Amino acid sequence: MKGLFSILLFTAINCFAQNADEVFIKKISDEIFTHSKAYDNLRVLTKTIGPRLAGSPNMYKAEAWGYNLLKATGSENTYKQACMVPHWVRGGKDEAVALLPGNKRKVLDIVALGNSVGTGGKPLTAPVIVINSFEELEAKKDDVKGKIVFYNYKFNPRFVETFQSYGDAVKYRGRLGTSSAAKYGAVATIVRSMSHEAGNNPHTGSTWYDSAYKKNPAVAIGLRDADWLADEIGKNRSLKIQLKTNGYFLPDAEGHNIIGELKGSEFPNEYITVGGHLDSWDNCEGAHDDGAGITQTIEILRTFKALGYKPKRTIRFVLFANEENGTRGAKKYADEAEAKKEKHIFALESDAGGFTPRGFHFDVVPEAFSKLKNWAPMFEPYGGAGFVNDGEGGVDISYLKKLGTPLSGLSPDSQRYFDIHHSRADVFESVNKRELELGAINMAALIYLVDKYGL
Amino acid sequence: MKGLFSILLFTAINCFAQNADEVFIKKISDEIFTHSKAYDNLRVLTKTIGPRLAGSPNMYKAEAWGYNLLKATGSENTYKQACMVPHWVRGGKDEAVALLPGNKRKVLDIVALGNSVGTGGKPLTAPVIVINSFEELEAKKDDVKGKIVFYNYKFNPRFVETFQSYGDAVKYRGRLGTSSAAKYGAVATIVRSMSHEAGNNPHTGSTWYDSAYKKNPAVAIGLRDADWLADEIGKNRSLKIQLKTNGYFLPDAEGHNIIGELKGSEFPNEYITVGGHLDSWDNCEGAHDDGAGITQTIEILRTFKALGYKPKRTIRFVLFANEENGTRGAKKYADEAEAKKEKHIFALESDAGGFTPRGFHFDVVPEAFSKLKNWAPMFEPYGGAGFVNDGEGGVDISYLKKLGTPLSGLSPDSQRYFDIHHSRADVFESVNKRELELGAINMAALIYLVDKYGL
Repeated sequence: MKGLFSILLFTAINCFAQNADEVFIKKISDEIFTHSKAYDNLRVLTKTIGPRLAGSPNMYKAEAWGYNLLKATGSENTYKQACMVPHWVRGGKDEAVALLPGNKRKVLDIVALGNSVGTGGKPLTAPVIVINSFEELEAKKDDVKGKIVFYNYKFNPRFVETFQSYGDAVKYRGRLGTSSAAKYGAVATIVRSMSHEAGNNPHTGSTWYDSAYKKNPAVAIGLRDADWLADEIGKNRSLKIQLKTNGYFLPDAEGHNIIGELKGSEFPNEYITVGGHLDSWDNCEGAHDDGAGITQTIEILRTFKALGYKPKRTIRFVLFANEENGTRGAKKYADEAEAKKEKHIFALESDAGGFTPRGFHFDVVPEAFSKLKNWAPMFEPYGGAGFVNDGEGGVDISYLKKLGTPLSGLSPDSQRYFDIHHSRADVFESVNKRELELGAINMAALIYLVDKYGL
Repeated sequence: MKGLFSILLFTAINCFAQNADEVFIKKISDEIFTHSKAYDNLRVLTKTIGPRLAGSPNMYKAEAWGYNLLKATGSENTYKQACMVPHWVRGGKDEAVALLPGNKRKVLDIVALGNSVGTGGKPLTAPVIVINSFEELEAKKDDVKGKIVFYNYKFNPRFVETFQSYGDAVKYRGRLGTSSAAKYGAVATIVRSMSHEAGNNPHTGSTWYDSAYKKNPAVAIGLRDADWLADEIGKNRSLKIQLKTNGYFLPDAEGHNIIGELKGSEFPNEYITVGGHLDSWDNCEGAHDDGAGITQTIEILRTFKALGYKPKRTIRFVLFANEENGTRGAKKYADEAEAKKEKHIFALESDAGGFTPRGFHFDVVPEAFSKLKNWAPMFEPYGGAGFVNDGEGGVDISYLKKLGTPLSGLSPDSQRYFDIHHSRADVFESVNKRELELGAINMAALIYLVDKYGL
C-alpha cells in the first residue's frame, strides 16, 4: 500500500508539475503576445542598419546595437568575444547582359556569389553552355572550354520541406560547381537561384573554390531569367553573355560574437546557449536571415526578466558572427567553451526564418529525445510540437557537437523561406509580427523546460 | 490457428492497404507540386475578374469562369444552381475626415461595412464617443445620443489562433454593434478593424441591423487610425468626424452555385462535397478569401483526372454563391439536397485562406472521428495532421448539418489571415504558390480517403 501511495503521490506531484509548466508556458505566451519587443527590434536592426556582412562597417554597427540591446534588456554579463572574420567585398554592381543577334540585348538579374572573384575590372564576354546536372557536365566536358557554364538544376518541387530542395540543389552553387566548371576550362559559372519563388530576384550565398583550379567569377541568376536563358540558348546557340562582377577579399577583420547572460542560481556552471547569427548577406536587410533569430533570442531574455524567471543554469544569449561566409564566430565560441572546459548542456538556434513555427529539430541521444518528446504535447497550443531527432540543429551551434552538447534548431514552416532567402526580398516587411512572436514563445518554452529539468 | 492466420492476413492486408494509401497520397503530392494549375487559375480569377460581390457584374464573370474551368478540367456534369442573392452596392467612395481645432483635418482610412446604409447623399458630421466594450456602452449610454459610436475593442493577442480573436471581436461589427449604438441614439458606428495587422488597411465585412432600431451608417477603420483617433479624442473632446458612405440595396439578383461532378462508380448516390465560395468582398481581389478555396477545389478535380482516379462515390466540386453577405448559395445547395433526398456522406470546405495547412477542423460523430484520427498520421509529411473535432467546418457546408452530413474545414495556419482578410491586401500576391498547393494536397488526400473507405 505504501508503494502504491508513493506511486500515486509521485504521479500526483508530476501531474501538478506538468500543469505548472503548462501554466508558465501560457504566461510566456501571454507576455510575448502582449509585450514583445522582437518586431520593433527587428525594425531597428533592418531599417537603421540593414545589410551587415562580415567585415563591413554595418557589422560593427550591428555589434554595437546587439551589445547595447542585450544590456538594456537585462543581461547580467554582456561581452564581445573577438574572432577574425573574412572580409569579402562585392566591389560594385553585378551586371550581366545577354547579347543576341541583331544587336539585341537583355539585361539579366544576377548577383555575384559570396567569396567569388570578379571579372578583373572589365566585362567578360563568352558563350554559354546550359548544364542541368553534373552528369550532363561530364558528358559535355569537351564543349565547356572558353564558355560560361550555366547550371540550371531546378529546385525539386517534390520535396515538401523546402530545406530538402535546398540541400539537393545547393551543390551547384558551391565548390563542386565552381571547380567542375573550371576543371573543363569554363571562364565563369552562372547558377540558377536556390528558390521556388514566383519572381526573378537572384539569390546569393557563399561559393568556394578548389585550389587546384582557376578561380572564376560565379553568379546566381533569377529564376525567370534562368528559364528565359535556357530557352533562348536552345534557339540561339550564338548567344553570348557579357558579365561584370567585382568581388575581392580584404584582409580578415576583427569581428565579435555578442553574448549576454543570465547566471544560473543552482548550476551556474552548466550552460544553455540560445542564439542566431548577427551577420547577413549584403544584398538584403537580413530580416528572416537571421534578424528573426537574433530578435527572438533577445526576446527570450526580455521575457524571462519580465516574468521574474531566475534560471537554474546559466543561459547564454549569443549573437554569432560571420555565419554566412565563414562561421568564424561559431568556431570561436565552441573553441573557447572547450578550452575553458565549460559544461554545455543544451544549445538552441533559430536560423530558419521568422515564419510560423512547426516544431524543433534535434541532434540528441535517444534518452534525451525521449525526455523531450514527453514535453512536446505542451507545445501543441503554440504550433511547435513537431519534434524530430533528425540530427539538425543550426550551423553556428553545430560546432558545439565536439563537446557532446545536445543541439536543437527552431523549425518554422519552410514554404516561404527560400522565396526570400539571400535575396533583396529578405526585408523587414516580409516578416510577420505574430509568426516571429510565436517562434519566440516556442523557443522560450523549450529553454525554460531544459533549464528547469536538465536534459 | 486458422483464426490467428486470419488475423495475420487481415493485418497484412490492412498494412498493405495503408501503405497503398500513403503511396497514392504521395502521387497526389507529386502531381500537385509539379503540375498544379491552382496558382495560375488564381491569377486569372483575381487579376482578370477580381472583386466579385453577390449581384455585381463580376459575380457573373466569375460564374462563367468557374463553369468553363470546371468543364475544361474534366467535370463530367457541370451545372449552375440558381439562387436569389442580395445585391448590396457600395455606391461610391467611403470617406471620413477627423475635424480638429484650427481647421485641421485628418483623413481616416475607413471602409463601409457590407449591407450598411449610406449617410443619405451628403456627409454626416458628429462628435465621437470611444467605446471599448458593450459594458462601457451601457455605462455611458446617456452620452451617446447624436454621436458616432467608435467601438475600439481590440483583437485579443492572447489567443494563439487568430480565428478565436476574430470570434471574440466580431460582435462589435455585427447586429449587436449597430443596434446597441442605435438604441442609445448614435448617428453612426465606426468599428476598429478585425485584425492584428501592422498597417492601416480597413477591413470590411457584413453588418446587420435590428429592425427595432434606426439603421445607421457603419464603417470599419484602419488600426493605426483607430489608435490615433482614440488617443486624439482623449486630448480633444471637441473632435468631430465628417463621414460619407453610400451603401444601398438593389433588388435581389439571380446568382448561382457553380457545380462540377465526378460520378461515383460504386456508390453514385452517395455524395462527397468539396468547395469554397466564389464571391468576394468588393474592396479586394478575394485571393485568400476565397479564391484559394475555389482553386484548391478545382485542383482536386484536375489531380484526380490526371492520376486516373475514379471515385467510388460521386464527388461534387461546388463554387458557392454569396457566402460573404447572405449564404444564399449554401442554403440553396442544402435545401436542394434535402428535397432530392440526397445522401451526403461528407463535405469539406476551404475558406480559411491559402496559407500553409496545419490540419482539418471536423464536425462529426465520435466514431467517425476515430476513423479519421487513424488516418491523420498519413498527413504528417504534408503538414496537415492536426485533426480536431471541434465542431467547425465551413460556413457554406454548415447548412448540410440538417442532413446529418459529417463536415470538415481545411485549417491553414492562422497568423497571417486577418492581416489581409476583407481588406485591400487580399490580392494574388499575398498568396504563396507552395502553400496553396500544399492545402490542395491535404484536401485531395482527405477526399480520396473518405471516398475509398467511406465515413
